[in-house]
Amino acid sequence: MFSHNKRLQYTVRVGECNPGLANLMLEQFGGPQGELAAAMRYFTQAVGEDDPGRRDMLFDIATEELSHLEVIGTIVGMLNKGAKGQLAEAVEAEGEMYRRITGAGNDSHLTQVLYGGGPALTNSAGVPWSSAYIDSIGEPTADLRSNIAAEARAKIIYERLMACTDDPGVKEALGFLMTREIAHQKSFEKALYAISPNFPPGKQPGMPQFTDVYFDMSKGGEVRGPWNEGPNWQYIDAPEQQMGVDGGGGEATATLQANEQALVQQMAQRTASDPSSDPQTGAELGMSEADTLKNVTAQLGKEPKK
Amino acid sequence: MFSHNKRLQYTVRVGECNPGLANLMLEQFGGPQGELAAAMRYFTQAVGEDDPGRRDMLFDIATEELSHLEVIGTIVGMLNKGAKGQLAEAVEAEGEMYRRITGAGNDSHLTQVLYGGGPALTNSAGVPWSSAYIDSIGEPTADLRSNIAAEARAKIIYERLMACTDDPGVKEALGFLMTREIAHQKSFEKALYAISPNFPPGKQPGMPQFTDVYFDMSKGGEVRGPWNEGPNWQYIDAPEQQMGVDGGGGEATATLQANEQALVQQMAQRTASDPSSDPQTGAELGMSEADTLKNVTAQLGKEPKK
Amino acid sequence: MFSHNKRLQYTVRVGECNPGLANLMLEQFGGPQGELAAAMRYFTQAVGEDDPGRRDMLFDIATEELSHLEVIGTIVGMLNKGAKGQLAEAVEAEGEMYRRITGAGNDSHLTQVLYGGGPALTNSAGVPWSSAYIDSIGEPTADLRSNIAAEARAKIIYERLMACTDDPGVKEALGFLMTREIAHQKSFEKALYAISPNFPPGKQPGMPQFTDVYFDMSKGGEVRGPWNEGPNWQYIDAPEQQMGVDGGGGEATATLQANEQALVQQMAQRTASDPSSDPQTGAELGMSEADTLKNVTAQLGKEPKK
Amino acid sequence: MFSHNKRLQYTVRVGECNPGLANLMLEQFGGPQGELAAAMRYFTQAVGEDDPGRRDMLFDIATEELSHLEVIGTIVGMLNKGAKGQLAEAVEAEGEMYRRITGAGNDSHLTQVLYGGGPALTNSAGVPWSSAYIDSIGEPTADLRSNIAAEARAKIIYERLMACTDDPGVKEALGFLMTREIAHQKSFEKALYAISPNFPPGKQPGMPQFTDVYFDMSKGGEVRGPWNEGPNWQYIDAPEQQMGVDGGGGEATATLQANEQALVQQMAQRTASDPSSDPQTGAELGMSEADTLKNVTAQLGKEPKK
Amino acid sequence: MFSHNKRLQYTVRVGECNPGLANLMLEQFGGPQGELAAAMRYFTQAVGEDDPGRRDMLFDIATEELSHLEVIGTIVGMLNKGAKGQLAEAVEAEGEMYRRITGAGNDSHLTQVLYGGGPALTNSAGVPWSSAYIDSIGEPTADLRSNIAAEARAKIIYERLMACTDDPGVKEALGFLMTREIAHQKSFEKALYAISPNFPPGKQPGMPQFTDVYFDMSKGGEVRGPWNEGPNWQYIDAPEQQMGVDGGGGEATATLQANEQALVQQMAQRTASDPSSDPQTGAELGMSEADTLKNVTAQLGKEPKK
Amino acid sequence: MFSHNKRLQYTVRVGECNPGLANLMLEQFGGPQGELAAAMRYFTQAVGEDDPGRRDMLFDIATEELSHLEVIGTIVGMLNKGAKGQLAEAVEAEGEMYRRITGAGNDSHLTQVLYGGGPALTNSAGVPWSSAYIDSIGEPTADLRSNIAAEARAKIIYERLMACTDDPGVKEALGFLMTREIAHQKSFEKALYAISPNFPPGKQPGMPQFTDVYFDMSKGGEVRGPWNEGPNWQYIDAPEQQMGVDGGGGEATATLQANEQALVQQMAQRTASDPSSDPQTGAELGMSEADTLKNVTAQLGKEPKK
Repeated sequence: MFSHNKRLQYTVRVGECNPGLANLMLEQFGGPQGELAAAMRYFTQAVGEDDPGRRDMLFDIATEELSHLEVIGTIVGMLNKGAKGQLAEAVEAEGEMYRRITGAGNDSHLTQVLYGGGPALTNSAGVPWSSAYIDSIGEPTADLRSNIAAEARAKIIYERLMACTDDPGVKEALGFLMTREIAHQKSFEKALYAISPNFPPGKQPGMPQFTDVYFDMSKGGEVRGPWNEGPNWQYIDAPEQQMGVDGGGGEATATLQANEQALVQQMAQRTASDPSSDPQTGAELGMSEADTLKNVTAQLGKEPKK
Repeated sequence: MFSHNKRLQYTVRVGECNPGLANLMLEQFGGPQGELAAAMRYFTQAVGEDDPGRRDMLFDIATEELSHLEVIGTIVGMLNKGAKGQLAEAVEAEGEMYRRITGAGNDSHLTQVLYGGGPALTNSAGVPWSSAYIDSIGEPTADLRSNIAAEARAKIIYERLMACTDDPGVKEALGFLMTREIAHQKSFEKALYAISPNFPPGKQPGMPQFTDVYFDMSKGGEVRGPWNEGPNWQYIDAPEQQMGVDGGGGEATATLQANEQALVQQMAQRTASDPSSDPQTGAELGMSEADTLKNVTAQLGKEPKK
Repeated sequence: MFSHNKRLQYTVRVGECNPGLANLMLEQFGGPQGELAAAMRYFTQAVGEDDPGRRDMLFDIATEELSHLEVIGTIVGMLNKGAKGQLAEAVEAEGEMYRRITGAGNDSHLTQVLYGGGPALTNSAGVPWSSAYIDSIGEPTADLRSNIAAEARAKIIYERLMACTDDPGVKEALGFLMTREIAHQKSFEKALYAISPNFPPGKQPGMPQFTDVYFDMSKGGEVRGPWNEGPNWQYIDAPEQQMGVDGGGGEATATLQANEQALVQQMAQRTASDPSSDPQTGAELGMSEADTLKNVTAQLGKEPKK
Repeated sequence: MFSHNKRLQYTVRVGECNPGLANLMLEQFGGPQGELAAAMRYFTQAVGEDDPGRRDMLFDIATEELSHLEVIGTIVGMLNKGAKGQLAEAVEAEGEMYRRITGAGNDSHLTQVLYGGGPALTNSAGVPWSSAYIDSIGEPTADLRSNIAAEARAKIIYERLMACTDDPGVKEALGFLMTREIAHQKSFEKALYAISPNFPPGKQPGMPQFTDVYFDMSKGGEVRGPWNEGPNWQYIDAPEQQMGVDGGGGEATATLQANEQALVQQMAQRTASDPSSDPQTGAELGMSEADTLKNVTAQLGKEPKK
Repeated sequence: MFSHNKRLQYTVRVGECNPGLANLMLEQFGGPQGELAAAMRYFTQAVGEDDPGRRDMLFDIATEELSHLEVIGTIVGMLNKGAKGQLAEAVEAEGEMYRRITGAGNDSHLTQVLYGGGPALTNSAGVPWSSAYIDSIGEPTADLRSNIAAEARAKIIYERLMACTDDPGVKEALGFLMTREIAHQKSFEKALYAISPNFPPGKQPGMPQFTDVYFDMSKGGEVRGPWNEGPNWQYIDAPEQQMGVDGGGGEATATLQANEQALVQQMAQRTASDPSSDPQTGAELGMSEADTLKNVTAQLGKEPKK
Repeated sequence: MFSHNKRLQYTVRVGECNPGLANLMLEQFGGPQGELAAAMRYFTQAVGEDDPGRRDMLFDIATEELSHLEVIGTIVGMLNKGAKGQLAEAVEAEGEMYRRITGAGNDSHLTQVLYGGGPALTNSAGVPWSSAYIDSIGEPTADLRSNIAAEARAKIIYERLMACTDDPGVKEALGFLMTREIAHQKSFEKALYAISPNFPPGKQPGMPQFTDVYFDMSKGGEVRGPWNEGPNWQYIDAPEQQMGVDGGGGEATATLQANEQALVQQMAQRTASDPSSDPQTGAELGMSEADTLKNVTAQLGKEPKK
């Protein structure tokens, strides 16, 4: 069960209202790398997790991320606070209001017209948050790697947001949020490596003949490095050795029952594009006279008689 | 530039058509952990990457994932091949067609009614593929971690799909695809650790006072382990030490200009919910007589006179 | 700031694992009327709210809804618990696994293949949760009405879910969650009616000549009732009185500058569909001989000569 | 059956083309609170409704909302009319075209580049309209409350749009549309209260012991008011009384069959994160030398020997 | 199987970095009419296609579209190249960074803050690419028509993008991509008309009595032309002849079983909106005193006594 | 302005309630090829269209499609009518209700649990309708081609739905709807070919050197036909002639300013993946002992000493 205290985890001091900056901050409120994604990622994992250590850790961090969602949402709200009053009471001249609302050069017009200055669970372009951002699949060696990556991404987005503001209060709170992503990544790393073995993830081993192979499928500018070079790699660069690597022809077959086969053939015949035809097309009907002439000339090998 | 050869990377041999199984396979065609997500993840990173080693590797693997997309799509197509003919030529009795289309107990009805038996870029529940599944952010220590995690997830989904079929040709092709995720993960790991240092990701260091802190925010069932215990961790479990951790009050403030302040107050007054009121509500208007009586009785402290 | 305790708000006792039932329960976990929608609806309103009474109430209820999200998610997890082990360890015969996974007749195949039996933030059809489900707009008389409606909807969905299970532990927990929606609706009603006036919502009055008008725009089966009848309604049923109700012609005009006007005309001429033409079309090219004959016959008023 | 007349319900007179303003107007064309959402909300309810009075009312209002969709779409089209010609005929210098298209400071670039100046069913940030905006659930006491709330929201958005323009023709048409939301709300209120009783919604009563309870789950800044105070409310503020409110332990259990239990245990063992381990992690491999030194020093309790 | 060469199909020469222009270009990278949509449209059709001619053509063009995706993505990357370094290394003053990021007046802030300057699979408004953009249904006479239309749309978007830039290298590459859409349309036209007959699409003929009918359902401003006039059209303009065109009453009936009928009636009774009632509503509770007075006055036909 | 009559355009007679069949029918109510998509496609084009003939035709057909939306929605509603009562009144035993709701083997569980048996604007898999299904771009030669294709697709989906039912009333109404798609396609074809020229679409001509070229990019199984053969095509099959077709190197360049260049280099250096390194990786930390041994053995060229 959750409980709440109206004191924030980190004090928020906004020096000056700025709806344009608020709009950028939405990235970590309702964006793909933001705090709702983080909180829900760990919360849903925690609910489905039986391992007592991971379960405890996931609930701890999920709860902290919810608290961060509150901090970043509060920053958004404070940056919009002035605009919210102006919008609700509408005392500006209308042209002035229009210029103010569209003036930031980003999507803060949405925050104001649609959301009335409230913090909305969208990214900075106004795209609604989607649980499609969460990539948990219910297997701990995969999910912990996903968590590690998610913390790395969130850390970077905070770094970018910090670069966009000179308001010291905003910057400091962002710095705190950024730092916690580092700490969380460390916890998830420990939990992953405390599973042994954890690579390859899951239970089934790979097919040994394909585990150490590297296919050079992009030609030109090849660079060999530890990712495809050395005694642990077999490097295959000839295209013909990259096809049908099972030794078969690289073809596809399905065994059809007789009635299935008959219908497939009937369909094939009915819908065949006849390669030996030379049909007139809709596009040809629609050409200008000049294009038609050029087309027909090519067809005849000479200009048509009139 | 891409080129294509109609031979598949791995031979596909389907023993028996089965639209229900085809539907499960869609998970790795147009699902979040599937091959389109993989191919586009690495392709877009490659296009934006300047480091020659990573660029080469990303193009190699992107191209292989496209080739895997073709393999899994071909499996889907072959499993649906019989149904496709039956649907297009419609010779079954109608009730029979209805039962066949809805009989698998999953979403293969969509593949047939909407997509005509063709492979569609949806997951197994019919949800359209979205680039929201791709979490690249244009920073290599984050993106490589994301790639590592993505390969781990895809490996597991293939493992699950393999458990669902006893068709040896399908199983073998899935086994190949699963194995390649292991090999790709290894390449991405090497490329990540060939960046030095790579942790914390990005350029900005964390605030030292918060990098090694673990907040115990979920009470009951605590388990200490390497993720929150030992000399590298500071463990904070008292709730009051988890609020306002900057030493401030944990409150939020914004400096408003005078006119902003005035409008905020005007709005506040106009829209206040008066705590000292006891208004009749719409819900009360809509109650049954019995509920209304109960409500009023509570209000009066006794049953109302009639 | 949030904190968490691993005890649930309501004890969950599942009598028998049932992934098919778990799938239905997802409706209130990650569905549009579910607990995440509720929690985030009230949480985002709370963060943006300045009125002290509403702010306190919104945080209270948001926190409770998060706790409900945990209860319903736990029900989902417990109902899937057996399947999760079977899937991860994969000891069944493959055909058996296939039948089990697709056997429920709903979308539980997704929960298993993609999410590994973990609770996923989707509705029961596998559609990812979207913040587009949240309709807050940052104005209290509108948002409180939205909250009242949201509680009413959630109450009904719980009622339907309760009708689908005879597991007494599940049913009882659902009953608790359903009941709390009633209580929350009552709170929101009180908070709305404690704003005075609260109708019409917002600040601007309507145009008096159109506030009390009812347009009968659907003919046949008219039923008059308090929603369009009585001294407070003006009932307009003649279609010609429903057009151009401002007294103008019901037409649309825009003042164009001369150069805009010139370009609009140039575009119009270039792209005109000439009504006096009788062009041959692509469809006609593609007709069967019989259809073509019929078409031409109509055109000529008689069958064409051969 | 629908029919159409090319006269609008309200005359539209646009004084000056302005694609930036057109973009804001999209909010009520293809946005979540806009006219398509309204029309489809009532239309789908009407089609599924058997009560003759509500059915008639819903068809009436759905038809009017479609007519409003036409009015607001016409406003969008007229505001874009000049830009449409400029774009199609492309006679400006290219830099000029670029500046014009990106100059409004909002998302009108999308309307022009992607939609060619035509009215698109997106919100003002370019997000496609989704039927996820419609929250009808097929129960009249819930759906009517949803309709009431929807009208309240739409009224407010029109109020905000009116504040953004000084074009008298646009403003007047918006005023009409805003006013009609007030009238519709009144109709829906009458239809709701003409169902008796209508609260609680649906058929099942709540559990009496939890219907009148208010849980104070957010601490600090509590404000008591009619929403949680008075003889009709039981106020519970002690956290320990908010957990396991059924009197049970607040725990979750599921009865597993023996084979399910065995597999769950096998999975648990295989994937345990061992709390007594102290594994080296990938993050540690990736640290800078300075960080590694700091880490090891902490581990040893002193600086390591070289 | 795919392979790749790092040489582009067309040389890309960007004269000057410009993140704002890059943002517009995204339309053809991850927008609905863009190259990913094209490539995936033809690729999935190719995988599901058995006709050897179409299969070959679809793979050819799909592969070329992937190569175009690379060209347009490279243009995006090059236009963002300068910004990417500035963002990653963050040496500007913060206000400067903020102004640069929000200065383009479009959604390039997203490309920078969220995607770090890398090419993202979104449209120019930041909306993620969705396979819902692909309309293939697995029937060749429909799918080829869809392909023809898709090429026509893509051609136009390129035309618009070309009008927005005076960078000769960008313009030339866009011109190449635009031209190829013309060539592809020609191929698809030929393949469609090489199916004979191809109209009406599919196998079932229409009901002859309704195939040639045109219903004039929008009154005012009628224009007759070849689309509704001439010997091949039957023009029906009387509304009463447009309803129940089968000769039935235009009503809807379903045969219910007795128990179904009983429950439908029970539900109807329980939830009826009583047209003879005149209930007080929530809206009336919330009115201002003035509005209430007006309302009651209307009700009484005179001002109420005090 | 729209008006409505409660008589349907076509009489709907449902023989027996069947929620499973209702679910399939949703495809043409709220699916991508369904009637809402059709109605909104033509309605939005009509609103933005100035050409009087097309404008009239588009409003006529949009209005008819709205009337079809009503017909198909009514079919859905009638097929669900029995289930709706059962659900709302909930008199079945719970297990019976569960079996009924999940028994159809498709997504009708969603229609019942979430939508209460009402017609919902989703496809048959429960995916919400999205305006992303509409591909209008505001240029008539493209939009009319899109309309032609849309009608062809809708015709096919109706054909498939007809094959799924033996209820004569349902089948007949579907037949009517299918037939009208044929008629609409004919109108759109006429309107397209009444624009002259209409190919290539738009205003800009292609680059002559690339308009008639066909690139054979998929090797193996080539089939030549009118789509790539004959005097109007130049067929290029050598891969090296498909790269850098402008005669340049097929490379990408951008002119960077000095400070941009410096930062790009700084970033490159900081984030280089060093190809000459051989770093230990996280995956290697996580390997089983057996895998580690194998790995090290390969590295050493022999088994390591113990």
